[in-house]
This record gives sequence, structure tokens and C-alpha cells, in this order.
Amino acid sequence: MIILGIDPGYGRIGFGVIQKTGNNFKIIDYGVIYTDTDLKLPERLNQIYIDMEKLIEKYKPDESSVEELFFFRNVTTAIQVGEARGVILLSLQKNNVPIYEYTPFQIKQAVTGYGRAEKGQIQRTLKLIFNLKKTPTPDDAADALAAAFCHGNTRRYS
Amino acid sequence: MIILGIDPGYGRIGFGVIQKTGNNFKIIDYGVIYTDTDLKLPERLNQIYIDMEKLIEKYKPDESSVEELFFFRNVTTAIQVGEARGVILLSLQKNNVPIYEYTPFQIKQAVTGYGRAEKGQIQRTLKLIFNLKKTPTPDDAADALAAAFCHGNTRRYS
Repeated sequence: MIILGIDPGYGRIGFGVIQKTGNNFKIIDYGVIYTDTDLKLPERLNQIYIDMEKLIEKYKPDESSVEELFFFRNVTTAIQVGEARGVILLSLQKNNVPIYEYTPFQIKQAVTGYGRAEKGQIQRTLKLIFNLKKTPTPDDAADALAAAFCHGNTRRYS
Repeated sequence: MIILGIDPGYGRIGFGVIQKTGNNFKIIDYGVIYTDTDLKLPERLNQIYIDMEKLIEKYKPDESSVEELFFFRNVTTAIQVGEARGVILLSLQKNNVPIYEYTPFQIKQAVTGYGRAEKGQIQRTLKLIFNLKKTPTPDDAADALAAAFCHGNTRRYS
């Protein structure tokens, strides 16, 4: 099963694509979608939608895992990231990719066994889980991989 | 010129379609898009997108006026309404409807001459502006008409 993990953002959207076979996890790809700061807001949202569709078309994920948003310095930032997240959810929904949502706490818990783990600890654990030579960067991509792993490791199959 | 005004929301999205001819304003339609509370979040976002596309197709607006969001009781609400607003902006962008954004203050100012006007005052002024027999309701639809009028009355044409 292919799982697409997403760390939602406005200027940077982390993505992580993993394959789960039995209890084994393998990374297919990970990275960041950047939006052009010169563009107007609706154009940036459109760019996110287009890049999400490209990801979905390329990797054909069976399921997706999208991080929930909770804390922001201010409401303006919360609204902006919410706008981007809405477009991300829409792209998955329109392309019939089932969506699962997890809180940052749940994701950290799933990866490290500790819901308040720091970023460095998550990245080091991801390196072990996926048997990588170096820790996955940047943060957004690592968070997306963590979200994907969280779903793969949490979901029960009947 | 046809202007589509939008009052963004999650469960209820107000819309107002007006025609501006010279300095005259005429209402074409107004109302509310409701999303089904039984649906999951991504499905509700998809419903908003589909209904927005129907509105755009039906009225073929030349321009749109979308209210900006500022204040919320909590961040969770801000993110949810942001998600819906992102989808609304995307639907306009993808259908090549130019988007203009106004703060609630600017909209109230444009309609009543007073940026802190109350809802009742805005609705009564809209009744006068558009020569209606009764005040436009519900609030969401009235706010959307106000946004459309704000744009029509604010925009300068070269």
C-alpha cells in the first residue's frame, strides 16, 4: 500500500510517499512543494492544487495522512495555512484518495513513542525506521514522512 | 459588469450577485450555500467547490469580491473557515474570475459610510441601495451583497 503523508503549509508543503508491505516500510519519495512568494494568494493556492495533483498522479497513493493544525502565533497565519490545507484536502478528495487526519501529538507518538518529542528526535527515529543513510530533511518533508508512517502504523486492517 | 460577492464560511457561505451599469446597481441573485453537517470535512469542501462552480457557470461574473477574515473565537474555527475560504478562492481562480479582497471594515465603510456599522444598519442600507421591498436575509447573504457592492463602488475604472 502506498501512503502519501502531507505536512500542510502555505509557502512550503511537506510530502512523504511510503510503501507499506506487511510490517515493512519503504520510502518512495519525499520533499517539499514550494509556492512562489511573488504570486498572489489565489495563484499560490492554485499552484498547490496543481502540484498536489501531480504528486497524486505520479505515485497513485492508496491512502493519505494529513497533519491537523492546532497552534499558531496569530489568527492571520492560521487562516492562511487553513486556506492551503483546504486546497490540499480538496485535491485528495477530488482524486478519490481516502484522507486520514492525525494531530501532531499522535504523529510524534507513533514515530517515537513520545507525543512531545522534538524534531531532531523524530528525524533520527525516521532514519532508523526507514533504514536511511542520513536523516531526512527539511523539517517539512520529515514531518510528512512521519505523518505517513503514523497512518501506516496506526491503521487497522480488517 | 457582473460582480459576485462572497461571505466565506464553512457550514454557510453567503453569495450575492449584482450588476453594475454606470453608477446603477441591480441585484441579480443572492443566497447561501449550505454544506451538509453529516458529511466529512473533505466532502464538505468538495461540496463548496462544486456549488461555487455552479454559481460561476450560472452568472458568469466578471469580477468577484471576497471578504477577508480576521477575528475568530478560537484558532480551530479560524483554520476551518480558512479551509473553506481556500477552496472558494481556488474555484474563482480556476474559472478565471478576478478576485478582489476587502476587510469587513472596508465593506461596512463602503455600504454605510461607517466602518463599525451593525448588521441591521447594513441590511437597511442595502435595502435602500438596491431599492428592495424588504431587507435582504439571512446575514450571510446580506454580507455577500455588501461585499459585492463594496467592490463595485470602490473599484476605479481607467
